[in-house]
Amino acid sequence: MQAEIITIGDEILIGQIVDTNSAWIAQQLNAIGIRVKQISSVSDDKSHIIAALKEAHERANVILITGGLGPTKDDITKKTLADYFGVKLVQNAAALANVKAIFRRLRGNNFTELLEVNKQQALVPENCEVILNRNGTAPGMWFNYDDTIYMSMPGVPHEMMYMMEEQVLPKLKSSLKLPHIIHHTILTAGEGESYLAEKIADIEDALPPYIKLAYLPKLGQVRLRLSAYGDNEDFLKEKVNEFAVRITERVGKAVVSQEDIPLEKAILDVMADRGLTLSAAESCTGGYISHLITQHPGSSKVFFGGAVSYSYELKESILGVKNETLWQHGAVSQETVTEMVEGALENFKSDYAIAVTGIAGPDGGTTEKPVGTVWIGVANKTKTVTKKFSFGNKRRQNIERTAIAALNMLNILLNELK
Amino acid sequence: MQAEIITIGDEILIGQIVDTNSAWIAQQLNAIGIRVKQISSVSDDKSHIIAALKEAHERANVILITGGLGPTKDDITKKTLADYFGVKLVQNAAALANVKAIFRRLRGNNFTELLEVNKQQALVPENCEVILNRNGTAPGMWFNYDDTIYMSMPGVPHEMMYMMEEQVLPKLKSSLKLPHIIHHTILTAGEGESYLAEKIADIEDALPPYIKLAYLPKLGQVRLRLSAYGDNEDFLKEKVNEFAVRITERVGKAVVSQEDIPLEKAILDVMADRGLTLSAAESCTGGYISHLITQHPGSSKVFFGGAVSYSYELKESILGVKNETLWQHGAVSQETVTEMVEGALENFKSDYAIAVTGIAGPDGGTTEKPVGTVWIGVANKTKTVTKKFSFGNKRRQNIERTAIAALNMLNILLNELK
Repeated sequence: MQAEIITIGDEILIGQIVDTNSAWIAQQLNAIGIRVKQISSVSDDKSHIIAALKEAHERANVILITGGLGPTKDDITKKTLADYFGVKLVQNAAALANVKAIFRRLRGNNFTELLEVNKQQALVPENCEVILNRNGTAPGMWFNYDDTIYMSMPGVPHEMMYMMEEQVLPKLKSSLKLPHIIHHTILTAGEGESYLAEKIADIEDALPPYIKLAYLPKLGQVRLRLSAYGDNEDFLKEKVNEFAVRITERVGKAVVSQEDIPLEKAILDVMADRGLTLSAAESCTGGYISHLITQHPGSSKVFFGGAVSYSYELKESILGVKNETLWQHGAVSQETVTEMVEGALENFKSDYAIAVTGIAGPDGGTTEKPVGTVWIGVANKTKTVTKKFSFGNKRRQNIERTAIAALNMLNILLNELK
Repeated sequence: MQAEIITIGDEILIGQIVDTNSAWIAQQLNAIGIRVKQISSVSDDKSHIIAALKEAHERANVILITGGLGPTKDDITKKTLADYFGVKLVQNAAALANVKAIFRRLRGNNFTELLEVNKQQALVPENCEVILNRNGTAPGMWFNYDDTIYMSMPGVPHEMMYMMEEQVLPKLKSSLKLPHIIHHTILTAGEGESYLAEKIADIEDALPPYIKLAYLPKLGQVRLRLSAYGDNEDFLKEKVNEFAVRITERVGKAVVSQEDIPLEKAILDVMADRGLTLSAAESCTGGYISHLITQHPGSSKVFFGGAVSYSYELKESILGVKNETLWQHGAVSQETVTEMVEGALENFKSDYAIAVTGIAGPDGGTTEKPVGTVWIGVANKTKTVTKKFSFGNKRRQNIERTAIAALNMLNILLNELK
C-alpha cells in the first residue's frame, strides 16, 4: 500500500514556511503500515495541481493533500479537485453548520451573520464525503475515485492533525488491507557515521532483503534505523529485534537509546527512572536547552527550571557568579561556567545541573574568543566537568550544537554512575 | 527561470526528519530571481530517483538535489546520477584531498589513513564539476546536461548551506539570465484571515496580473504576502510598494511589521529602537519564549534573560512569588502570574517583562483548571496586564500558542505608548 502526500501552497515553494505537516503525516501513515512513496510540494496553480494529482495517481493508492483550502482567492484546491474529478461544487449542510458553530464560538454574542467568504467554506465537490473539521472552517474531503483514495485536508497543522487522528487514520485502517512495517531506531551519540558503518559492516551485510538499515546523522548524533516490510508482523519484529541487539552490542557505549526519541528525552527517561532532578543555567543558548527538555510531557518530574542569564547582572544575582570572576576571566570562560553550573546546583537544589556560556554570534567575538567559542559545564554533587568548544559562525547552529554538546556531556556524566 | 528541488532519503518519507533544507533553498533561489516550481521528496531507490529527475527535467531549468551522499550503503544518489547521465564514477583528486583534510582536522595526531568508505566519498560521475564541501566529506556535484543545470548536494543542513552560499548561488547567478521576483510581506497579529480578506477585498481585486497576494495564517498571526514577477525591478518594487501601503492603511492597528519576520523579531526591533529592555519569567513555556527571542542576532541588547521557573521553589526564590499566593491561588492563577511578572520586572531590572504560567499537558489538569489553561502577564513600570487563555490539549501547541499570545500582549502594551 503506497501513499503520496501533496502539499499545496506557494508559501512552501518560496520558503516562507517549512513543511512540517508532511513528516507528521508520514509518521502516522507508517505506523499503520502505509509507506509514503513521494512527497510533492506544488504551487497554488490549477494545471500544476492537476499534473501532480495525475502523477501521484500513477504511483499511489492513497493520496493525502494538504493546503489551499482557506477562504481567500489564492486558495484553489477545492475548485481544482472538482475539475479533476469532473464534478460541481455544492453546498454541504454539515460543513455550513460547522462554519456557523465555529464563528459562534469565536465571536460569542457578537456573532450575527456569516461573511460570504466564510459561507463558501461549506462548498465541496459533489462526489466527496465531508470530513468535519472541528478546529477550523475548511472541511476535509474524502474521495474514492478510480481505485484510489484522495483525502484533502487544511494546511493549518492543528486542524490537519486532529482531522487525521480522529477521522482519517481510523477510516484508512478500516478501508484498506494493510501490510506491516516495523521500524526500530537506535540512537547513538558521540561517534561519526562512517565510524559506525565500518564497525557494523558485517552485520549490515548479513541483513535479509526485507530489512533496510539507514544512518541518520544530526549534530553529534547518529540514529541507526532498521526497517522491515512484510506480512508477518511477529516474524518481522523478531528479526528486527535480533539485528538491533547485534548492532547495539557492537556499537557499545555510544548507544543512548533503543527508541526513536531525541537525546534530551532519552536523558529525561533515565533521570526519571533514577529519581534524579535537573536544572539549567543558560547564557548563549538563551532558553533553548530548557525548551528542548520541557517540550516533553512529564519533564516537570525531572526538571526544576533554571536561569536564562543573558546579562552579567543575572549571572550574578540568580546564579551567584562572582563579579570578579566575570571581570577577570570574562563571561565566556571556564571559571564562569564552573560558577554557573555549581551556582545552579546550589540555588536551584537539583541533583544535576547544566550550564553554558558562549558567543553565539554573529557579533561579540574577539581574536581571543571568536564567535562560536562556548564553555559548557555539567555537574552533580560530587563532580563538575567543563569543556570548551569551538563551533562555527552561524548563530542558530551554534545554539543547537551547544545544546546537543551539553546534553551529551550530561549523558556521559549520568552513565559514569550507572 | 524555474527550479525544482529533489530531496532524497527514506528518513523524510517515514517522517523521521522534517525537511528544513527545501524551505531554505527556496528562499535563497527566490532572492536571486529563480522560482521554485516543485519540491519532491523521494526514497533512496534508484528507479524512483531517476523518475523524479526525468519529471523535474520536463518542468525546470535548474534541479537542486539534496541527500543520499553519505558514505553508507543506503546512500545511492551518486551512482544513480552516473547511471542517469550514462557515465562512470571516477576518483576526483580535489575531493580526495578534501576528505583527507577533514579527517586530519577531526582526528588530529590520531589520523593515520582513510577508511575505504571514506575514500569512496571522492568518487564522482565523470561528467560533473566538483564543488568542494568545506564542512564535510561528500563533494557537491554540478552538471550541465541537456540545457539543464543539475546540482547535487549533501543533505546535512550546514554542509548544504555553506555550499549554496559560497559556491552554488554565485555560480547560478553568473550562469543564468535571471528575471526579478519581488516579495513584500506584511505581518499582522490578532485578526483572522477571513476578516482581513473582507477588509481588503477591493484592493485585492485591483491587483494587476503580475502581482499575487497570499494569506499565510499561523497561530494568531496572518502574513499578507505580495509577490511580483517581471523584468523591470524598479517598476515591480514601486507597484508592490503602492499596494503594500494601501493594504497597511486599510488593515490599521493589526499590522505589526512590513518585513517577513517573526513577531518576536518585530518586537525586538521596536524595543531596540526605543532603547527598552525585556525579561521573562516562564513556567509552562519552559524557556521557549526566551529561545524565540534569543535566536535573533542582537537580542542581547534588549533581552536580559529571565527564569524558567518550573517548580514552586524557583517561582519563590528567583521571582519572589509569595508562598501563600502559590498555596492559596495555585501556580496557575492571576495572582501568581501578577507576582511573577512584577517580580521579573523588579529582580531582573528590565523596562518590560513577560510572565506565563499554565498547564501545558498532557497531565496536570483539573476540572477547574483543565489542560490548556494559561495565565499570561505583561508589565512595565506603570502598568500590568494579565489575561487568561484556554488552549487545547496538545502540549507543544499549548507552548507555542502561549508564547505567541504573550508576545501579542507585549506588542499591544508597547503600542499603547507609541
